[in-house]
Amino acid sequence: MGPIEMKAVILLSGGLDSSTVLYKALADGCECYAISFDYQQRHRRELNCAREVAKKAAVVKHQIVQFDLRQWGGSALTDNSIDLPQERSLEEMSQNIPITYVPARNTIFLSFAVSYAETMAASRVYIGVNALDYSGYPDCRPDYIRAMQEVLRLGTKQGREGNPIQVVTPLIDLKKTEIIQLGNKLGVPWELTWSCYSGGDVACGVCDSCRLRLAAFAELGLTDPVQYAVRSKV
Amino acid sequence: MGPIEMKAVILLSGGLDSSTVLYKALADGCECYAISFDYQQRHRRELNCAREVAKKAAVVKHQIVQFDLRQWGGSALTDNSIDLPQERSLEEMSQNIPITYVPARNTIFLSFAVSYAETMAASRVYIGVNALDYSGYPDCRPDYIRAMQEVLRLGTKQGREGNPIQVVTPLIDLKKTEIIQLGNKLGVPWELTWSCYSGGDVACGVCDSCRLRLAAFAELGLTDPVQYAVRSKV
Repeated sequence: MGPIEMKAVILLSGGLDSSTVLYKALADGCECYAISFDYQQRHRRELNCAREVAKKAAVVKHQIVQFDLRQWGGSALTDNSIDLPQERSLEEMSQNIPITYVPARNTIFLSFAVSYAETMAASRVYIGVNALDYSGYPDCRPDYIRAMQEVLRLGTKQGREGNPIQVVTPLIDLKKTEIIQLGNKLGVPWELTWSCYSGGDVACGVCDSCRLRLAAFAELGLTDPVQYAVRSKV
Repeated sequence: MGPIEMKAVILLSGGLDSSTVLYKALADGCECYAISFDYQQRHRRELNCAREVAKKAAVVKHQIVQFDLRQWGGSALTDNSIDLPQERSLEEMSQNIPITYVPARNTIFLSFAVSYAETMAASRVYIGVNALDYSGYPDCRPDYIRAMQEVLRLGTKQGREGNPIQVVTPLIDLKKTEIIQLGNKLGVPWELTWSCYSGGDVACGVCDSCRLRLAAFAELGLTDPVQYAVRSKV
């Protein structure tokens, strides 16, 4: 493929998964454009990390799209009156769609990413959904990604012209430990990433996202270089 | 159906089509919530009309979501360096996807509408796509709407629980003249609506959107109550 075919937009939250995906896209030979979303999330701090990771990875451009999902809330990440689940076991986390689910978030994110991709005639959009996410979140599952792919084929000029933007999901079947192993191979700067759902200055260590991350590093016998308020055992 | 089942979110641009759709949703017995988008479009003025129409129709709430599609442009509606097509015949308009196409716009709009709908347990999202649009725009066609419906089924909590939000498209097979006839029956306040793509204080009368609208009123032997700089014959 020529250089134009290999332009890619990477959804980058600044977390462990999306940072790994960015490094994977680089390893795939893509010219990378990052996109992040300031939706007034509780953990907006992740955007600083997204900026640092994007800079470290030397992306061509990093777009930050702003809008306000607190207008209607409906999630512990966009409504401070809803408590964040804390100190849940991995089993508890995987039983139901959690209150940290933000209605239609990945559909919003992917639609902006594709809008951006199409203006550049990019051929790919990378997103870091994975098996752990899709045990809980509906918009991280393989059947959802396939449905979204069909929307991109039919709902864009590029798609109608027979050249649809491809949604690439390199982590979709990986567990958190496998993502960390992949990231280590690719040289992802973990110290710059941010996964915590809380709004604090250091990672809380007790929200679902911190616990999943800590548990995976621990299982591999590795130390997560990020600073935590509490390094709880899961 | 009970009252909860009949909550609906209406995509309201303030134009002729979406205003008719709002009145149709009211006639269908829905409790209506309007949603409009300030995406720094050339014709942002339409938002004032959306506000007036929403007020006249006494919607329960009107959300205006703000973001900036000028960040990447790619359309005559989001990049002032791209000229608006003017004085085109209806035939010329329908031949290709026009430069007023905004990449993935309806996917962005529908994803926000569904996010809002889900936080209220609404059952429907109304959108005013129609036959004239889909002769030109990829994201107005029936197959696209069906694909989007599948995304809403798989990508939301409500959908996964067997109660997907329905995308309702009352205008999808209607020509502009038929939409005006429907709107007349429903009492749509045409004088409050805005269809022009230009950024002026009165409708230009020469952009595609003005010409389609003027031609349809003329074909019906009616006078469009909106003020035009030029009332061109198509």
